[in-house]
Amino acid sequence: MSRKRGGGESRRRFLGGVGAAALVASASAKGLGAQKQGELYPFGFVIHGGAGTIERGKMTPERERAYREKLTEALLAGYEVLKKGGASLDAVVAAITLMEDSPLFNAGKGAVFTSAGTNELDASIMDGKTLKAGAVAGVKRIKNPITLARLVMEQSPHVMMVGDGAEAFAKQQGGVTFVDPKYFFTEERWQQLERRREEEKKKKPLKTSALERDGLLLDEKKFGTVGAVCLDKAGNLSAGTSTGGMTYKRFGRVGDSPVIGAGTYADNQSCAVSCTGDGEYFIRSVVAHDIAARMLYGGKSLKEAAAGAVEKVGKLGGGGGLVAIDHAGNFAMPFNTSGMYRGSIGPEGKPNVQIYKE
Amino acid sequence: MSRKRGGGESRRRFLGGVGAAALVASASAKGLGAQKQGELYPFGFVIHGGAGTIERGKMTPERERAYREKLTEALLAGYEVLKKGGASLDAVVAAITLMEDSPLFNAGKGAVFTSAGTNELDASIMDGKTLKAGAVAGVKRIKNPITLARLVMEQSPHVMMVGDGAEAFAKQQGGVTFVDPKYFFTEERWQQLERRREEEKKKKPLKTSALERDGLLLDEKKFGTVGAVCLDKAGNLSAGTSTGGMTYKRFGRVGDSPVIGAGTYADNQSCAVSCTGDGEYFIRSVVAHDIAARMLYGGKSLKEAAAGAVEKVGKLGGGGGLVAIDHAGNFAMPFNTSGMYRGSIGPEGKPNVQIYKE
Repeated sequence: MSRKRGGGESRRRFLGGVGAAALVASASAKGLGAQKQGELYPFGFVIHGGAGTIERGKMTPERERAYREKLTEALLAGYEVLKKGGASLDAVVAAITLMEDSPLFNAGKGAVFTSAGTNELDASIMDGKTLKAGAVAGVKRIKNPITLARLVMEQSPHVMMVGDGAEAFAKQQGGVTFVDPKYFFTEERWQQLERRREEEKKKKPLKTSALERDGLLLDEKKFGTVGAVCLDKAGNLSAGTSTGGMTYKRFGRVGDSPVIGAGTYADNQSCAVSCTGDGEYFIRSVVAHDIAARMLYGGKSLKEAAAGAVEKVGKLGGGGGLVAIDHAGNFAMPFNTSGMYRGSIGPEGKPNVQIYKE
Repeated sequence: MSRKRGGGESRRRFLGGVGAAALVASASAKGLGAQKQGELYPFGFVIHGGAGTIERGKMTPERERAYREKLTEALLAGYEVLKKGGASLDAVVAAITLMEDSPLFNAGKGAVFTSAGTNELDASIMDGKTLKAGAVAGVKRIKNPITLARLVMEQSPHVMMVGDGAEAFAKQQGGVTFVDPKYFFTEERWQQLERRREEEKKKKPLKTSALERDGLLLDEKKFGTVGAVCLDKAGNLSAGTSTGGMTYKRFGRVGDSPVIGAGTYADNQSCAVSCTGDGEYFIRSVVAHDIAARMLYGGKSLKEAAAGAVEKVGKLGGGGGLVAIDHAGNFAMPFNTSGMYRGSIGPEGKPNVQIYKE
């Protein structure tokens, strides 16, 4: 796999592997939707485990190894699905489920605590072929929120369900694993909450100046949201995102992860995107759809479109990043924080995992 | 006010009135953001009261008069704010509050019932100058959800709050009127629920074929969501939307109205949009942001952009419409249903109200 120079954001084609060159030759022809029926695309899979203040100096070797191993495992889970000709959505769900089950990420098992000491999880998924989408917000007893988001997409007439209603739907449909809310307890996240509570005691209540409010938002520990985007052999794109939200979140706050267009978007005509970061800024910029629109209407490359969208979020004052892949297998992983857990894999089956700006 | 020929969707400039011509001359200059500091724009205000199966033959003269009067009242409420040089957001809130207080529309007082016989309201608002936004979903005791959406935008670090949390925030902040849930009882909406419950008894449960599920969605009576978009004299755009959702909605379903990018979007660089219709399709198409993106990246006119977005929703199988206004005061009110309650007013102060395809 060759790497292009010039900047932290990667842009590569998923090359390599026997036969891939021929596939790429057809897929890289100009014009969207140029493929013929039955024609194979190269496939590609890109994931993130959250963006934020992630610095080499603050990471132990053990911890870094744990992240690299889990990201590699998630990439290989997606790869296994894709190399057999499996569906884009299946690869996304396989990798996200695996990250949700790990305490390392702020999603599923490792979800942060709300100010009330509970865990409220959000997730969304989108199918680039049909533009169907599913999202859940504020669920408390679903082991893998990404599987419930998919159930909403595939088995309900709705796109977005919140709270108890989403869980009632899961119960009615079956096939989704319920857990006791205690399942989401992890010592590390609890300590984060305790530290945050201590900090809050020293602060004024929420009704303060805009400046202080912004400060309140910015000093959140933001990293941890997980996501995956995928191009399968049939040329179908999909995207998924899962999160536990912000530590100490209050007031039934919903971030960008379950908002289609903001945290997640996929359209076979352009690209698939999953975001992580200051959710409020990502909602206001409608980041995931913004990237698709810059490609579709503005004729930008995926790399240009993704960089432009992250720059826009940064100008508003938001931090974060995203992973994106287009219909030809180009991918981008831009972020404006000090790090983003991320990785990619193509037909050659070699996982590429990165954490810091490189 | 002159009307252009050729199609149901209107596209006009807010002309007329002493001095307006000069204002328009400056505002219609090519290029976004071409205004100088202190330079006045013409102002314009456009509202909707929902799109759906609204046919002349099924409407009594009394009922039609009631809608026309309330839409006129809402337009004049916005106009009063704007002609004094008031802020875009104030005009939007004034008109939407008035429609929320009327039993005629599916928002506030006239909200439809959920399958549980409750009323759950959603609203959102966006400021095109700052790209700040606020949204609430599933609130049950807030008289005017649009005022709470504005409070979220202006007094919290968040964009979207749902359910009890949103109400707790309202209580903490103050300034928002709480009502007993009984306030939202209206005989007409209750009858709608009863009819719907009868229909449901004859149907299979939700776990049916995709075709049947689609049927379930499509035979909803969709009209009623209210919205407003505005250009004020200072050149600021804003948009707001408020709804009671779908009759018989279940599972904590959230439609497009509180989803920034889908039901509501505003950006001074392009346009302000408020949508109404089959919420799921509007979320999947990210309609409001799609219109802004077609203008900003694709160089389309507001009319072209709005028509293109409605066409896309229609191709997916969704019905509905929207109101939109751009930075120069052009506006559009496209819809693909048989009718949409809608109206516009410009500097000349003459309300123009329409209901059917004309």
